[in-house]
Amino acid sequence: MNASLLRSVIYIAALCGLYLSTAMLVPAMVDLYYGHSDWRVFATCAFMVGGISLMAAMATRGPPPIFSRRLGFLLVNVLWAVFALVGAIPFMFSSPHLSFAQALFEAMSGITTTGSSVISGLDTMPPGLLMWRSLIAWLGGIGIVALGLFVLPFLRVGGMSFFKMESSDTNDKPFARLATFTRAFMAIYVGITLLCAIAYDSAGMSHFDAINHAFSTVATAGFSTHDASFGYFQSDAILWIATFFMTLCSLPFSILIVFAVRGRLDALRDPQILVFLGYVSAFAISTAIYNHLANGVAMTDALTHSYFNFASLLSTTGFASQDYLLWGPFVVMAAFFATFMGGCSGSTAGGIKAYRFVILFNVITTGLKKLIYPNAVYSVRYGKQTVDAETQRTIFLFFSVFTFLWVIGSLAMAALGYDFTTAASAVITALANVGPGVSTLIGPSGNFATMNDPELYLLALMMLLGRLEVLSVLVLLVPIFWRT
Amino acid sequence: MNASLLRSVIYIAALCGLYLSTAMLVPAMVDLYYGHSDWRVFATCAFMVGGISLMAAMATRGPPPIFSRRLGFLLVNVLWAVFALVGAIPFMFSSPHLSFAQALFEAMSGITTTGSSVISGLDTMPPGLLMWRSLIAWLGGIGIVALGLFVLPFLRVGGMSFFKMESSDTNDKPFARLATFTRAFMAIYVGITLLCAIAYDSAGMSHFDAINHAFSTVATAGFSTHDASFGYFQSDAILWIATFFMTLCSLPFSILIVFAVRGRLDALRDPQILVFLGYVSAFAISTAIYNHLANGVAMTDALTHSYFNFASLLSTTGFASQDYLLWGPFVVMAAFFATFMGGCSGSTAGGIKAYRFVILFNVITTGLKKLIYPNAVYSVRYGKQTVDAETQRTIFLFFSVFTFLWVIGSLAMAALGYDFTTAASAVITALANVGPGVSTLIGPSGNFATMNDPELYLLALMMLLGRLEVLSVLVLLVPIFWRT
Repeated sequence: MNASLLRSVIYIAALCGLYLSTAMLVPAMVDLYYGHSDWRVFATCAFMVGGISLMAAMATRGPPPIFSRRLGFLLVNVLWAVFALVGAIPFMFSSPHLSFAQALFEAMSGITTTGSSVISGLDTMPPGLLMWRSLIAWLGGIGIVALGLFVLPFLRVGGMSFFKMESSDTNDKPFARLATFTRAFMAIYVGITLLCAIAYDSAGMSHFDAINHAFSTVATAGFSTHDASFGYFQSDAILWIATFFMTLCSLPFSILIVFAVRGRLDALRDPQILVFLGYVSAFAISTAIYNHLANGVAMTDALTHSYFNFASLLSTTGFASQDYLLWGPFVVMAAFFATFMGGCSGSTAGGIKAYRFVILFNVITTGLKKLIYPNAVYSVRYGKQTVDAETQRTIFLFFSVFTFLWVIGSLAMAALGYDFTTAASAVITALANVGPGVSTLIGPSGNFATMNDPELYLLALMMLLGRLEVLSVLVLLVPIFWRT
Repeated sequence: MNASLLRSVIYIAALCGLYLSTAMLVPAMVDLYYGHSDWRVFATCAFMVGGISLMAAMATRGPPPIFSRRLGFLLVNVLWAVFALVGAIPFMFSSPHLSFAQALFEAMSGITTTGSSVISGLDTMPPGLLMWRSLIAWLGGIGIVALGLFVLPFLRVGGMSFFKMESSDTNDKPFARLATFTRAFMAIYVGITLLCAIAYDSAGMSHFDAINHAFSTVATAGFSTHDASFGYFQSDAILWIATFFMTLCSLPFSILIVFAVRGRLDALRDPQILVFLGYVSAFAISTAIYNHLANGVAMTDALTHSYFNFASLLSTTGFASQDYLLWGPFVVMAAFFATFMGGCSGSTAGGIKAYRFVILFNVITTGLKKLIYPNAVYSVRYGKQTVDAETQRTIFLFFSVFTFLWVIGSLAMAALGYDFTTAASAVITALANVGPGVSTLIGPSGNFATMNDPELYLLALMMLLGRLEVLSVLVLLVPIFWRT
């Protein structure tokens, strides 16, 4: 680990600190507008964090670093850790006065767009605090799309190299192109958020709720401003608007970017989109039929709530319109497995992700054929492309490590005293950045308020691991990483 | 599918029917000896099955078939299905008068060495019936070791090609060698069973219990002659004897065969042995410490019961000395994950198996290194051997399909009305051929007696799938399998 690498990392972290301190002015202004004294907390935090960051940035300024894989891995870890630590500060000093562990959990949950919460009584919380939660989730959403589009493919994490932007094929002016793409992405991200907020607003949400929920929806995070989440609004229109936007933001942003930059929708050929939309419908329709048959709920109502809640779980958002765990054991099991699955690559969604299932399915079908004709050549395909052995191997690696972390985490949660269902679902909901679990305590009607420090740290770590596609974090544990 | 293939399959199935009809004479004699009228049931079944099998064998006799992969896959499926169907007959007509679904479940549980049971009140059941359960499990144990040693490696299922017997390297007289190995294996299998029975007997079991439990232990099945399983005997000596033999029979039989044939223990170099023994101890020691701390159980007692119950789960036997689910949530979670893991290749144990974890671990460590140095060449190793890409791919295939079946099965069980813990653990305990689940209903103190036909069929199918390493069954679903 050489000094110039360390300097660059601190420098970039300090820039992020500056960026976050500016963001703290938003909740400060909100509290000021609504006349809540917490504006002082946010203003003070902004001032302190901004000052320290500025000093750190000036002290470590220097020539731009040479990009290396080590720098890349170090950077993504440091950035998310700094975001979570800085994001936690206002939670400790504003109205709910969370402990450090709780504040870190809440901030990590936001920045990783998980949406699990330790705060009860949301309906009476000051507006600045609610805005801060939604805002860090929204910023986390930007971070993760950027990571998925521009960083992880080059670090070759978990088969993501398969999704290098088309622009990387052509060598002319890659950085100019990158800038164009970044601008296009930001325009689209802000545009979708605005559209979502306007839709919520016109369907009956208050302005404040509309903006907060739009932030939280587009980031597929799941923070709400009400304890009852979307159950508060009692509006089918709002549920369908949310279903649409949660699903949209689980699709690869590259499609929308390519559309915006080149006016072409050719990335729609991506097979993961069909698979993702397919399994959203499969979960929604099967649970709706079950709810209809088991509980006598009218089919249209059942479909509305099933689509909303399963789009919410599969997009890794975590909003709820009802306590779907009460629909029956099949829905509990379906919600549990839905928590693993996730959306598409290059979106704000987490989890295992649809493209890995596409490749997995093709590995299985070609593998079965090879058992019959061992000498025949069957290539594993992704749409029209052939998936090379290297990508297959890294996807295997991802599945193994993801599952292994779930196992270890569940054992740890059980050792801390949680029952089977709570322990197993708390860990996967954190690891897949979803939000709710499938037990009463942490389900759609519960939250993480009663948990102690050790489990909050554990789950916050799981959120970080999941958000960075697990391998980007674990690579830091390999001794050769630290050798120069 | 040509006619000569079908003829060969029926012929071999008929021979197996004959073999099983002979085996039915054992419980008939046992019941006769103890003066129970059920001897007539077994004698009649033996006569009927024997007669039908003999006719079928004579009708389909012909030149020996040419061995093909198709024949191999078809044969393993048909054999296990026929064994289960024929094995079920006595359960329907003898004392407990099980329904067809229950009888099939019980017989499949035996023949796949799972050990789950629908029969309550074992202590008062007629001896012939108890003997029949133990006996089909013991015969199933022979079948599965033979399959693992001689068949699956050549069918290249789930990375088993890695374990071709050393004899297959040399081309001189392979069949002569096979005969030698088969004789050696039978001698060892019978020898270990005798030793186990003698040990049980001298530690205080009745002769009848000793023989039954020896059959069930060596096959790593888990059928007991008492509802309280090993809790009935209240003897630490018996627990440690069982722990030793369950562990021994989860090791690769090839080691013992090579030892018996050549007097060499060179197969002990096999890394899976160390890993298997390692995780047995890790589970046993951690749960013992937990039990000691949480419940104040003396450490020696805690170790005895933890070693017994976790050797039982990890060897996929399923005996119990206590209701370990009452020790606390950590033990429930540990038991759940232990259910997936299994023993070594070429043993009577089921589950995912230790060698796959060895390769998985090395895939993970080399994969992480490759993230840092993408152009370096790191080979995945198994001991001193390099694991080729093909073997890695088939192991990935196995993991994926195994997990997928668990997911589908758990959803189906939940749809049939079972709670989360029961549904998830019923499917994995069947798929890994273990026996008990981790909920009150089907845990070490419960059984499957209250289940209805649909779930019994589902779980019986899962047992078959797990026993045949899942892929050998699923290959029948690929359309090209049936094209000539």
